[in-house]
Amino acid sequence: MATKVTIRDVAAEAGVSVTTVSHVLNHFSGARVSDDTRERVQAAARRLGYAANGLARGLRLQRSQTLGLLSDEIATTPYAGRIILGAQETASARGWLLILLTTGNDPHVEQREIRALAQHRADGVLYATMYHRKVEVPAELRTMPVVLLDASSADPAISSVVPDEFGGAQAAVRHLLEHGHRSIGFVNNEDDIPATHLRLDGYRAALAAAGVPYRPELVTAATTDARSGYRAAIRLLDRADRPTALFCFNDRLAMGAYRAAAELGLTIPLDLSIVGYDDQELIAAGLYPGLTTVALPHYEMGAWAVTTMIDLLEGRLAGDPPRITMPCPLIERESVAAPSHT
Amino acid sequence: MATKVTIRDVAAEAGVSVTTVSHVLNHFSGARVSDDTRERVQAAARRLGYAANGLARGLRLQRSQTLGLLSDEIATTPYAGRIILGAQETASARGWLLILLTTGNDPHVEQREIRALAQHRADGVLYATMYHRKVEVPAELRTMPVVLLDASSADPAISSVVPDEFGGAQAAVRHLLEHGHRSIGFVNNEDDIPATHLRLDGYRAALAAAGVPYRPELVTAATTDARSGYRAAIRLLDRADRPTALFCFNDRLAMGAYRAAAELGLTIPLDLSIVGYDDQELIAAGLYPGLTTVALPHYEMGAWAVTTMIDLLEGRLAGDPPRITMPCPLIERESVAAPSHT
Repeated sequence: MATKVTIRDVAAEAGVSVTTVSHVLNHFSGARVSDDTRERVQAAARRLGYAANGLARGLRLQRSQTLGLLSDEIATTPYAGRIILGAQETASARGWLLILLTTGNDPHVEQREIRALAQHRADGVLYATMYHRKVEVPAELRTMPVVLLDASSADPAISSVVPDEFGGAQAAVRHLLEHGHRSIGFVNNEDDIPATHLRLDGYRAALAAAGVPYRPELVTAATTDARSGYRAAIRLLDRADRPTALFCFNDRLAMGAYRAAAELGLTIPLDLSIVGYDDQELIAAGLYPGLTTVALPHYEMGAWAVTTMIDLLEGRLAGDPPRITMPCPLIERESVAAPSHT
Repeated sequence: MATKVTIRDVAAEAGVSVTTVSHVLNHFSGARVSDDTRERVQAAARRLGYAANGLARGLRLQRSQTLGLLSDEIATTPYAGRIILGAQETASARGWLLILLTTGNDPHVEQREIRALAQHRADGVLYATMYHRKVEVPAELRTMPVVLLDASSADPAISSVVPDEFGGAQAAVRHLLEHGHRSIGFVNNEDDIPATHLRLDGYRAALAAAGVPYRPELVTAATTDARSGYRAAIRLLDRADRPTALFCFNDRLAMGAYRAAAELGLTIPLDLSIVGYDDQELIAAGLYPGLTTVALPHYEMGAWAVTTMIDLLEGRLAGDPPRITMPCPLIERESVAAPSHT
């Protein structure tokens, strides 16, 4: 392996002392160095490809310009990519580095990761969860600046960004109502997580705003995979007064609902309209017809969390720590039309 | 935000000088410090939760214990998660940190990222691509240890790990042959990338080994999404002597082939067997019946690259830089059966 160019090599190349090189490259304002010498040192450093030592600079500024992205199991999920990308590109654009850590929901691993971040003097930590969760920030993290990503805490002192599950569900159901549907089934998630409750609230609010009565028999819950979606959709559709539209908690459930529709001889969107949630491109764009769905703003949440953290660290934010709910936009494809029997 | 505990706080707590604390916590062998004092300092550091400064230690050891994972657009793809996870968990288990960088295939961004890694004295760089590619390692990286991840170089001095595309395709087609298929269509990718050529070679080798003639009219190429897969499958299946099985370049194409089969009234696997590639769980497990496919060893490649890099850096490897091809295992689900007309 090639040896790293050191400050000694630059000094030899420029014919000056190591101290002079250090003063020039570190921009010490108090150092008395002639313009000629300064230029010679800079040219030598360029010729040799010398990279100023970020570690040493970090010590001087008491800042490493690095952030930790500490997540539960984010990297194992299909959602991970765009959260990480949003955080990474934003950090990079501002000249910061992102260290990636995954705990696998193991508290021992989490403690080890947090110690490693502290040892490397990471300036702040983005604490991210795979899906919108309420969390307790681990005690070990309380000595560092923290921003929660796709998670929120009961502690108002901690900044956080979460998706607007309520608004997203409301937009999905409103979209169906606007196409004339009055009998809209909902295949919900059965897990006790914020999205389950908030999307049900959004579904009910949209119906109420349109004067459509809430009918509990049109709501069912399932584990969030295509097979459960298939079974749940069969339950809702295999009845005399079957709904003309389904809102599904996610695109995987919607994928199962497509199969249920095909088996029951229902054409999408003529006989049945479907709206999903997540905008998982592999599924939503891959289904035929393309699935209208609600997007989770993963990239935007990652970007926001990094921007907020750097602004906090650089003292650009005044007032209470920002805590925001980010909109979930409706992505229209081809799975929604007016009900055929109206 | 809470203030970081400094070495001064530890000194005050232990009732000793800052120098003494530094000597104890940095394990300076030459320092004359009594056992009693040593214990008092260590206890004080523990009580205050003082984290030894990784930056300072990095300077002393000339090692930051960090690796950069520099990738083209890996984080934007559904494949990213498990490559990153394999790299991250392996680094963590060995006490190293992973800095994540994405270039978006922009050479200017790439140069900036590489400079940032050099400035932070990253000990080595994993240079990763979104899918198996042949790459030129950027000149800026040549001063650092590099391991290629899901990519390979013509330069034998650079370690690399890539998936065994040939072997994976061979296993898929052999699986179909073993079920009695003799007329096997192949929906290939149309991009000029290693996987396109190697999987075609694997398809042909499996046929040849079974004494089945290669018929070019059973091979077609498509862009790798479900809609193109649908159209390509229709082309192959809508003929008198239609193949009894399809091997698809990836699971998205297979998803389209499922729809084509449904439209043509063909039941999978009774009338048509299908094997995909990638084992994208969302699709492969979500389709009905479950899709038999070939897995790309993303986690394993990420883990191997980190292990190899750390072994290189720690001087544990002798001989030529390791360059390996990692097996792609067949994942059996329910989309393959014997052809019905035999």
